[in-house]
Amino acid sequence: MPTQEHMKQVLQAYIDAFNAGDAAAITGLYAEDAVVEDPVGNPQLVGRAAIEEFYTGAIAGGAKLGLDGPIRGSHGDRAAMAFTIDVPGLRIRAIDVMTFGADGKIVRMDAHWGPDDIEKT
Amino acid sequence: MPTQEHMKQVLQAYIDAFNAGDAAAITGLYAEDAVVEDPVGNPQLVGRAAIEEFYTGAIAGGAKLGLDGPIRGSHGDRAAMAFTIDVPGLRIRAIDVMTFGADGKIVRMDAHWGPDDIEKT
Repeated sequence: MPTQEHMKQVLQAYIDAFNAGDAAAITGLYAEDAVVEDPVGNPQLVGRAAIEEFYTGAIAGGAKLGLDGPIRGSHGDRAAMAFTIDVPGLRIRAIDVMTFGADGKIVRMDAHWGPDDIEKT
Repeated sequence: MPTQEHMKQVLQAYIDAFNAGDAAAITGLYAEDAVVEDPVGNPQLVGRAAIEEFYTGAIAGGAKLGLDGPIRGSHGDRAAMAFTIDVPGLRIRAIDVMTFGADGKIVRMDAHWGPDDIEKT
């Protein structure tokens, strides 16, 4: 199981790579067959090709991420973070939970945000 | 599936009941056969009797909860919140994810906090 320190570094790297506009770097944090459900309740993306396409689109839309507080770990294979996504004209408040494989890659990401978590800015 | 509004009200009621010292009220937010994994990676509690015992102990320990930001919903049956737990001498930062049943009760709670998310105060 990855260390707490490793998982938190990966979540911070996710934020930093997103804000640097580097979809390939974000995708590299995921396992080859990783699953992304963003938001929870929508169809899942499976595999790095679909995941990279998703982040490429989000970055092209001008989204920037800001942490709302410290990244949390667990006593297991998961870490979580609360953050705010600023897109031109919109603000979305989300909580992502990442599940890790033994090799330290993200195997699953669940993004918690709903229709009511979006406001116009 | 419960509405976003309902799920967020339940998470707020959870915080309020905890801070009021009302373990029975918290337990009543859960389904009879609900599962609590707090923290993620530790053995699960199953059923209301075990859940009420858990919250009774936490409340007796003097813990108080404060939200770190708005409660998040989803496009499905889950809601999440980032919060800080102040216990005399300790501060724990956690992110809880609640999964709901069709009747609006919590069927599963996952609490994300690790050994590094505790600081002495």
